[in-house]
Amino acid sequence: MAQMHSIANNRSVTLLLHCDLRVGLAADLTRFVQAHGGRIVYHDHYVDTEINRYYTRLQWELANFTVADNKIDDQLTTLAGGEDSHWSLSFSDRPRRMAAFVTKEPWCLYDILARTHSGEWPVEIPVIVANHPDLKSVADRFGIPFHVMPLTADNKTEIEEAQLALLAEHRIDLVVLAKYMQIVSERFVQAYENRIINIHHAFLPAFPGARPYHSAHARGVKIVGATAHYVTEVLDAGPIIEQDVMRVSHRDTVQDLVRSGRDIEKIVLSRAIWNHLQDKIIVHHGRTVVFH
Amino acid sequence: MAQMHSIANNRSVTLLLHCDLRVGLAADLTRFVQAHGGRIVYHDHYVDTEINRYYTRLQWELANFTVADNKIDDQLTTLAGGEDSHWSLSFSDRPRRMAAFVTKEPWCLYDILARTHSGEWPVEIPVIVANHPDLKSVADRFGIPFHVMPLTADNKTEIEEAQLALLAEHRIDLVVLAKYMQIVSERFVQAYENRIINIHHAFLPAFPGARPYHSAHARGVKIVGATAHYVTEVLDAGPIIEQDVMRVSHRDTVQDLVRSGRDIEKIVLSRAIWNHLQDKIIVHHGRTVVFH
Amino acid sequence: MAQMHSIANNRSVTLLLHCDLRVGLAADLTRFVQAHGGRIVYHDHYVDTEINRYYTRLQWELANFTVADNKIDDQLTTLAGGEDSHWSLSFSDRPRRMAAFVTKEPWCLYDILARTHSGEWPVEIPVIVANHPDLKSVADRFGIPFHVMPLTADNKTEIEEAQLALLAEHRIDLVVLAKYMQIVSERFVQAYENRIINIHHAFLPAFPGARPYHSAHARGVKIVGATAHYVTEVLDAGPIIEQDVMRVSHRDTVQDLVRSGRDIEKIVLSRAIWNHLQDKIIVHHGRTVVFH
Amino acid sequence: MAQMHSIANNRSVTLLLHCDLRVGLAADLTRFVQAHGGRIVYHDHYVDTEINRYYTRLQWELANFTVADNKIDDQLTTLAGGEDSHWSLSFSDRPRRMAAFVTKEPWCLYDILARTHSGEWPVEIPVIVANHPDLKSVADRFGIPFHVMPLTADNKTEIEEAQLALLAEHRIDLVVLAKYMQIVSERFVQAYENRIINIHHAFLPAFPGARPYHSAHARGVKIVGATAHYVTEVLDAGPIIEQDVMRVSHRDTVQDLVRSGRDIEKIVLSRAIWNHLQDKIIVHHGRTVVFH
Repeated sequence: MAQMHSIANNRSVTLLLHCDLRVGLAADLTRFVQAHGGRIVYHDHYVDTEINRYYTRLQWELANFTVADNKIDDQLTTLAGGEDSHWSLSFSDRPRRMAAFVTKEPWCLYDILARTHSGEWPVEIPVIVANHPDLKSVADRFGIPFHVMPLTADNKTEIEEAQLALLAEHRIDLVVLAKYMQIVSERFVQAYENRIINIHHAFLPAFPGARPYHSAHARGVKIVGATAHYVTEVLDAGPIIEQDVMRVSHRDTVQDLVRSGRDIEKIVLSRAIWNHLQDKIIVHHGRTVVFH
Repeated sequence: MAQMHSIANNRSVTLLLHCDLRVGLAADLTRFVQAHGGRIVYHDHYVDTEINRYYTRLQWELANFTVADNKIDDQLTTLAGGEDSHWSLSFSDRPRRMAAFVTKEPWCLYDILARTHSGEWPVEIPVIVANHPDLKSVADRFGIPFHVMPLTADNKTEIEEAQLALLAEHRIDLVVLAKYMQIVSERFVQAYENRIINIHHAFLPAFPGARPYHSAHARGVKIVGATAHYVTEVLDAGPIIEQDVMRVSHRDTVQDLVRSGRDIEKIVLSRAIWNHLQDKIIVHHGRTVVFH
Repeated sequence: MAQMHSIANNRSVTLLLHCDLRVGLAADLTRFVQAHGGRIVYHDHYVDTEINRYYTRLQWELANFTVADNKIDDQLTTLAGGEDSHWSLSFSDRPRRMAAFVTKEPWCLYDILARTHSGEWPVEIPVIVANHPDLKSVADRFGIPFHVMPLTADNKTEIEEAQLALLAEHRIDLVVLAKYMQIVSERFVQAYENRIINIHHAFLPAFPGARPYHSAHARGVKIVGATAHYVTEVLDAGPIIEQDVMRVSHRDTVQDLVRSGRDIEKIVLSRAIWNHLQDKIIVHHGRTVVFH
Repeated sequence: MAQMHSIANNRSVTLLLHCDLRVGLAADLTRFVQAHGGRIVYHDHYVDTEINRYYTRLQWELANFTVADNKIDDQLTTLAGGEDSHWSLSFSDRPRRMAAFVTKEPWCLYDILARTHSGEWPVEIPVIVANHPDLKSVADRFGIPFHVMPLTADNKTEIEEAQLALLAEHRIDLVVLAKYMQIVSERFVQAYENRIINIHHAFLPAFPGARPYHSAHARGVKIVGATAHYVTEVLDAGPIIEQDVMRVSHRDTVQDLVRSGRDIEKIVLSRAIWNHLQDKIIVHHGRTVVFH
């Protein structure tokens, strides 16, 4: 498969950092990178002036960078360390490993696999987990192992243990609930904090929970939407990453909403995954900062 | 004032009708109009196949129509009468009379008055009712009587009686709550059923009630909106006429939402009023059919 | 793969008809269907009052319909015949046969194949024609014959002859140019009049021709879009079926537009194909009527 | 009228600057402000990596700032001077003075006057210039001098001279063509470079020039729009500030487009004016950088 992303050349690292606002920190970070031969290819920041908090995304090429990968962290501690400070570093030559969880509905899974296999996304999908066998043929088409792990009210704890073991075995970084239609437990959420993305087929906080298109139709709304968010312990209440909407009318039946809603669902989910894979999202206080 | 709408010529009547689906009713209505010399200028219908219900809007010019205005109703009873059948007739040379209720925020009021006074809408506004005196200068600019009727928890019943008397005196057809920011009583609602339009500055059913922009900001949504709806006894739960949205980001403060939200609010409210004035809305089972 | 569309049961026929406006035609059509036992499941029409033209889509179930398939046409000639009258009939148990033409870009092809193979669309794709071999692996994934027919300035006539022979052999009803990036000849267009759908990655009539994202970037537009249209002899000038847009800013590079534009392209193209497959489009005077 | 904007308190200055990218300039600017007691309330920048150009907007409060207003420029020359460098300084207690140019259509003028008089915008409108007398009553309603200066092919040079004299007399900073429907000359454009904003009722570059709604209807587009741009010598080709669109269908007549297009026109124009008044726009190479 031709890669759209050249990874070998132009190896880079991306820093996502947030902390209390400090005078000169932006300049300090820039200077640190440049003083050691890094070439900055992205630098944006956002200051929440209500809480005096600083959020930044800084990406630089490593070709001539003189600090070793495993020493960057120490330098950042010196520059930006503190109890209020949180950061992550992501290297461009270590592509993320993503697991897709599905049930019976194929459109989000197809969209994810098509993007991955055409090189649109720098990600590997070593495993698909399913609650039902229906989508095995889709996984087969793309040659990806498909694990049917039927979850019921009775076996939820054991199944989730098995799922977590599978994710650990495959060194999964990101779990995507691509129309999984199941609630994951607090234990599961904590194991992948801010690393589980769900797509909900409504414009949250309107219509959380089951059958949102039916509720939207009954309420007679003129616009419906979809929401991609990080999963937390509370159903459909996690930090929102991306939303989009479409106009509907009295002529649309529930079936029309379900059908045309698919397009919004898959596009919104894929935009959220893209932003996550590009290290463009910082979560703080239940909200997201999404850099351009 | 130049009228954009020529009313004297091309006098027409608009029928809005809904009833259980009956074979041939559309053809019967068409034939009735044409057989008596009416010239149809608009005919659209919608069938809700889930409940087998027929909704139609039929407008015809009266120049050569041989049935007297006050006899049309009898003919409709013959053609379409029945317990399940509801209709209204609206003559183009009897412009609607609209009252605006306001508090302190001017943008919706300005938009309504500008459209009315430039002849964009075929409506008269004989009275503005206000909970505070702040917008008197706006009313004065357009020469419209401005009644300050300060409503409190204690005097709500008396004030609403006075309001209803004022509306009756001015033969008001339509009440627009243009950022009125007060809850009207059941008695008031029943007096003007499906004739009170409110604008709520959120994408209902998300964020009903007070301070929706604050709630939207706290929840971290990526899109906010506004909703125009007919007022019912239940707060922000009436039939939705029109909604629109705008994209926001983490960079938007609550003040940004308030500021840019004004544009959505006034446009959504004005679209809803336009559709009402054009007799394009049928309310049934808590939802609206809005003809094009 | 389970079919979402049950075709055997509820066999139906869809009539698309347009002609000069005639009094009573809608009622005549309705009565014809009902008098012969047909059950109407869709009936909508549109009158262009500027040119007094009538457009209708009428669909009925055939279970108890007493007119033979091949006799319906005669009856329509009696009811609605005339030089000004054009119609087509489409039976639900004869699924359309679609050919996809591609070059190197996979996203529209993947979207089409995913929808087809998951049963979202009632269509068969017996053949993919390509100007380059790049997308063979995609076709293979879905088990569809992939014909590489490299077209150059020199061999255009012969290649198009071969393409037309291939389409005839496979009894193709609809040709989709899914990022084909080639101009088809007048002869080709005439062979499939109003049956070739192209996706152009711009908001036509802005930016026709090559490299529209580059042009959009250079012009500094704040919104970009995509357009699906029927192909005519004139480049990017055919009847528009569907368009959609997305907001961009000065921060978007050409590469950003190319990347995020993919989503609009594939969704707009797929919506157009869906409407075509559902017999919801009438072309007249270079414009489309698209029923809901 | 109560001012929503408190100008006396929190007096601030806004710097808009663009120049070739220089290492450390952002930090230098920040440090300069802070070292002299300025309190930064807004700082954003954008780097166009294709041409290595730096664009920034920096706003700081002057309460404790120790550099005199008229000395800031000198300091900036030291910090950021050079042939490639351009900047402007705007003080919050010197509100802009805006002239509106109109013909016969009232909606944009009403929207501008309503926003100005309700304190939504920090601007003064000392004069309205009109090609026709029709909108005098609107100007009168808001107590603004209204100059009818009927422009023809024969008197264009003299009328424009008179207009320029009037603008000079009123010390106008910004000219808004609020449905002026006239082409201004090169001489006029040069006198107010990047300070004349026009609203065009189409989604440029589609449908420049006259009667765009008619052209859009004839072409059968599914979306129409409006564009606010700075006026240059070339008709409808100036730097785009803001655009927005709305969905239309075959059911929309030209009159429907004209009517519903008004809302887009006035909102797009007002958003562009707002961004100009807030010093959020930098023009470079025919394109705009619009800060959030």
